[in-house]
Amino acid sequence: MSDQWIESLLTDDVQQGYELAIKLSRMGVKYTQPSDAERQKMRPEYAGNASDLIASSHVIATNFQTVAAANNYWKK
Amino acid sequence: MSDQWIESLLTDDVQQGYELAIKLSRMGVKYTQPSDAERQKMRPEYAGNASDLIASSHVIATNFQTVAAANNYWKK
Amino acid sequence: MSDQWIESLLTDDVQQGYELAIKLSRMGVKYTQPSDAERQKMRPEYAGNASDLIASSHVIATNFQTVAAANNYWKK
Amino acid sequence: MSDQWIESLLTDDVQQGYELAIKLSRMGVKYTQPSDAERQKMRPEYAGNASDLIASSHVIATNFQTVAAANNYWKK
Amino acid sequence: MSDQWIESLLTDDVQQGYELAIKLSRMGVKYTQPSDAERQKMRPEYAGNASDLIASSHVIATNFQTVAAANNYWKK
Amino acid sequence: MSDQWIESLLTDDVQQGYELAIKLSRMGVKYTQPSDAERQKMRPEYAGNASDLIASSHVIATNFQTVAAANNYWKK
Repeated sequence: MSDQWIESLLTDDVQQGYELAIKLSRMGVKYTQPSDAERQKMRPEYAGNASDLIASSHVIATNFQTVAAANNYWKK
Repeated sequence: MSDQWIESLLTDDVQQGYELAIKLSRMGVKYTQPSDAERQKMRPEYAGNASDLIASSHVIATNFQTVAAANNYWKK
Repeated sequence: MSDQWIESLLTDDVQQGYELAIKLSRMGVKYTQPSDAERQKMRPEYAGNASDLIASSHVIATNFQTVAAANNYWKK
Repeated sequence: MSDQWIESLLTDDVQQGYELAIKLSRMGVKYTQPSDAERQKMRPEYAGNASDLIASSHVIATNFQTVAAANNYWKK
Repeated sequence: MSDQWIESLLTDDVQQGYELAIKLSRMGVKYTQPSDAERQKMRPEYAGNASDLIASSHVIATNFQTVAAANNYWKK
Repeated sequence: MSDQWIESLLTDDVQQGYELAIKLSRMGVKYTQPSDAERQKMRPEYAGNASDLIASSHVIATNFQTVAAANNYWKK
């Protein structure tokens, strides 16, 4: 994957940081399954499965720890 | 999702911090499955499933680590 | 949930800290499934299931990291 | 559980620290399923199941992070 | 495994750091299942399975925490 | 288990650190299932199962966080 998709872990505020954590989580899936078509095909499966949704939120939480630490928790 | 749903990781006390961790955990699900109707439909499934409840508590625990660190563990 | 169930992450010793981690882990379940009757009904299921017990211990370990850090590992 | 089973997170060396992490992991199971007989009954189940063994090692790893940090990684 | 496959956790930027986290995650699989043929055989299984993809992203997130901390979050 | 199998978390370089994380992960399994014969019997099961391999890599990643922190990320 040669595209540049991230430049920095710093964000303006908490919510942008959380959304960056989501992006990081999705990229982990994308690097493992690069086909957009294949990933789209699985969407109904996990989007309608409680265990998968909880697991997705866990991955985001893990990445959010990293982003939040990088931003020193957005403390002024 | 354009709505602002979080402004800060700082809370007045531990319990509010824990409840913010719950909110973060739920938002991870919501970003992945944005349909309120779909999420409501799954509620009986995971709310009555021990493994899903334990997994939910794990996500909350992970987010609570972030919130607690941001608040320096609410030490005076 | 309007009841105050936690005031502080500080405890007198390691064991109380571990027990607080257990409480935090249980509250994560309780917020997701608030019905005492429903949770009681699931008890035999997870208390007799090795995978669920291991997962429960994992949640406690995650919360214990937070409590232990808050208490600076109970070092004098 | 009124017995005192842990006094300190400090250990003399790395291996004792790892073994303390194992104890913490087992106590998480014991608090959730206090019956010795019930836990013994499950032993063949998880001790012969690769997924459960891997999950057990994950819990130990999580607790070992806490014990290792408490001991400042046993650096002189 | 006698080959040298990693020299340093330091990378030039965030994206290279994320890609190093992917490499670390794959090496964890490779040390456990060293046969290239066996791993290739499993590829369609996990690359087409939402739960496995989410779990893969979780491993990457965990390694990314390490890489990001090593690089002090690429702050100038 | 009375044998001494670990003396220190410090290693000469990143790769030795990663390999120590693998050893820690395997010891977590070994303490739970001490029989070499039983563990060998399970090997084909998990070495041919994508979910188990991903979970193994997750345990290694968790232990690698500890080893990397102990070594201050092998920064000079």
